[in-house]
Amino acid sequence: MLDNFARRKYDEELGVQSLVAIEDFETRAAAWEEVSGKKLQTYVGDLLDADFVYATLREFRPDAVVHFAEQRAAPYSMIDRQHAVYTQQNNVIGTLNLLYGIQETNPEIHLVKLGTMGEYGTPNIDIEEGWLEVEHNGRKDRMLYPKKPGSFYHLSKVHDSHNMEFACRIWGLRATDLNQGIVYGQQTPQTALDPRLATRFDYDAVFGTVLNRFVIQAVLGQPLTVYGTGGQTRGMLDIRDTVECIRLAVENPADRGEFRVFNQMTESFSVKHLADLVAERFPGPVQIEHLENPRVELPEHYYNVKHTGLVELGLQPHLLSDTLIESMFPIVEENKHRVELDKMLPRVRWTNPKN
Amino acid sequence: MLDNFARRKYDEELGVQSLVAIEDFETRAAAWEEVSGKKLQTYVGDLLDADFVYATLREFRPDAVVHFAEQRAAPYSMIDRQHAVYTQQNNVIGTLNLLYGIQETNPEIHLVKLGTMGEYGTPNIDIEEGWLEVEHNGRKDRMLYPKKPGSFYHLSKVHDSHNMEFACRIWGLRATDLNQGIVYGQQTPQTALDPRLATRFDYDAVFGTVLNRFVIQAVLGQPLTVYGTGGQTRGMLDIRDTVECIRLAVENPADRGEFRVFNQMTESFSVKHLADLVAERFPGPVQIEHLENPRVELPEHYYNVKHTGLVELGLQPHLLSDTLIESMFPIVEENKHRVELDKMLPRVRWTNPKN
Repeated sequence: MLDNFARRKYDEELGVQSLVAIEDFETRAAAWEEVSGKKLQTYVGDLLDADFVYATLREFRPDAVVHFAEQRAAPYSMIDRQHAVYTQQNNVIGTLNLLYGIQETNPEIHLVKLGTMGEYGTPNIDIEEGWLEVEHNGRKDRMLYPKKPGSFYHLSKVHDSHNMEFACRIWGLRATDLNQGIVYGQQTPQTALDPRLATRFDYDAVFGTVLNRFVIQAVLGQPLTVYGTGGQTRGMLDIRDTVECIRLAVENPADRGEFRVFNQMTESFSVKHLADLVAERFPGPVQIEHLENPRVELPEHYYNVKHTGLVELGLQPHLLSDTLIESMFPIVEENKHRVELDKMLPRVRWTNPKN
Repeated sequence: MLDNFARRKYDEELGVQSLVAIEDFETRAAAWEEVSGKKLQTYVGDLLDADFVYATLREFRPDAVVHFAEQRAAPYSMIDRQHAVYTQQNNVIGTLNLLYGIQETNPEIHLVKLGTMGEYGTPNIDIEEGWLEVEHNGRKDRMLYPKKPGSFYHLSKVHDSHNMEFACRIWGLRATDLNQGIVYGQQTPQTALDPRLATRFDYDAVFGTVLNRFVIQAVLGQPLTVYGTGGQTRGMLDIRDTVECIRLAVENPADRGEFRVFNQMTESFSVKHLADLVAERFPGPVQIEHLENPRVELPEHYYNVKHTGLVELGLQPHLLSDTLIESMFPIVEENKHRVELDKMLPRVRWTNPKN
């Protein structure tokens, strides 16, 4: 387990906190050791520090590296030039250091890297898993799926994907790119074992993701803020499936030289549908408010995603139609004194980075 | 005219020089003013310095920015981790600063950016100009052409292309990406006006490009070094056409919101064919030596490139079958005392970045 605490620093910078308090790194590691009986080695450092990356790989000697160490919020990357540059530099160079570290210390290591469904954008054709069989003027090739991402953050992951494909091709590395959809839910079987293991539950307009934010808004008696018409459709998945997907990827490694891509999502929903769903399930009045969309994205579009790779490895999806949403209401109720309402309004606008 | 002298620093680092001596920045600017009668404003600074970029744009108030300010050698980017990181950071962040600078100071400015034909790699289908009409499962979309670049340098330009397409899409910027082939030749009508305007003529294995290097090897009585079978085929163009393409792109700007891509090349040749051509034209004995290819690339492949955009704007290509090669021999003869032979052997290996 390796951390540079960047996520905690974004909270300080933006003046927000996870709805559910997050214990410090060592406390969480200790809690996991208590409940699991397994030793968890911890490292504090930054992927931008190549010496640290190499030293850690040499000391820990992993079979696989699960790389989730990127700045992960589209709005954060769109705040201004500095945040765009920070995001691309942090994400792209961090991953580049890791690729070199693996190549130079042990090219057998399987890199499992968090990508995003947002790399694809919303093309008018079916979205395949990372690669596309292209037929053009009577000839064929298998090519990286063409990308049209929606923020400098999403772009950073497109850049990563290209760098990783190259490293697999020339050095024979093995890598799995998990193009993850929007995650909802806050508990997994593991975090439920001990309150100190609780994971983040973000409600602010920069780091909060859409379904979690709607649930929080409902409990607080705030209007659910839908951007534009809400026709934007995105791939999503339950946080329990996220964890399961990582396990499946690690236990079934990519081959040497293989750049393997999975679309890590289980269902697609429009934003409007999610708002209606929360309104329907919440035991009280809920208002839905349409705000001008701060992002530049298609309001209505085709969206059909192939996501069979992880199912073939054994994933059994938790679908949203089951009981999850109701289970989130009490978590919010318990923590609602921590909310700062003004942080929920979107202030980062795609079209005008200065404001 | 803006420079940070990075190219001169690479020479110092690698212990090499252009075959033809290059005058300093101010001397060249003064020479151009003398022969053209036009004032050339000079700026010394770095695109990584955003304040400098913004201040320069505000002061100079350009209609177009011709952006050639990137680390441009594939082998340089493949020396080791540091050089890969430097290349991607320098190129990607420099271009990002420029995009923000244009957006914030005057979004009417037309960005004309040097890309590379190497972004495409050697796909088994026809290479289109930046965009591809994809038909898949009965549906269609116009998408960025899928890329399979061959080095961390080429990757940096793929990253740039994605960032630029996004900036055009969300901010309505206008940009032209010149996916340039391998340039040969050393004189243009402009540089011929005064010897102080001479441009670089690189022969070393890191920055020297293939045809120029073969010509120099022939004159020096050194074997022409073909990597592998020499079946690798690449798009190429005469240096006079390069300059003309930039003029045509600037004088016919992209529309607001348009990410326009031109394949800036005029003919395709295999490396072996170029070696044979130089051997045939050189008035003396020439030996051709096949070295183990230090790069990872397909030795034999399909290669068919569409490059009509610039011709439609008026480009009249200089073809290699004309007299150019012969005109290069005397330039080399005159400067051959400057050559360090040991710099011509490839030492950067794609498969093992440590050596």
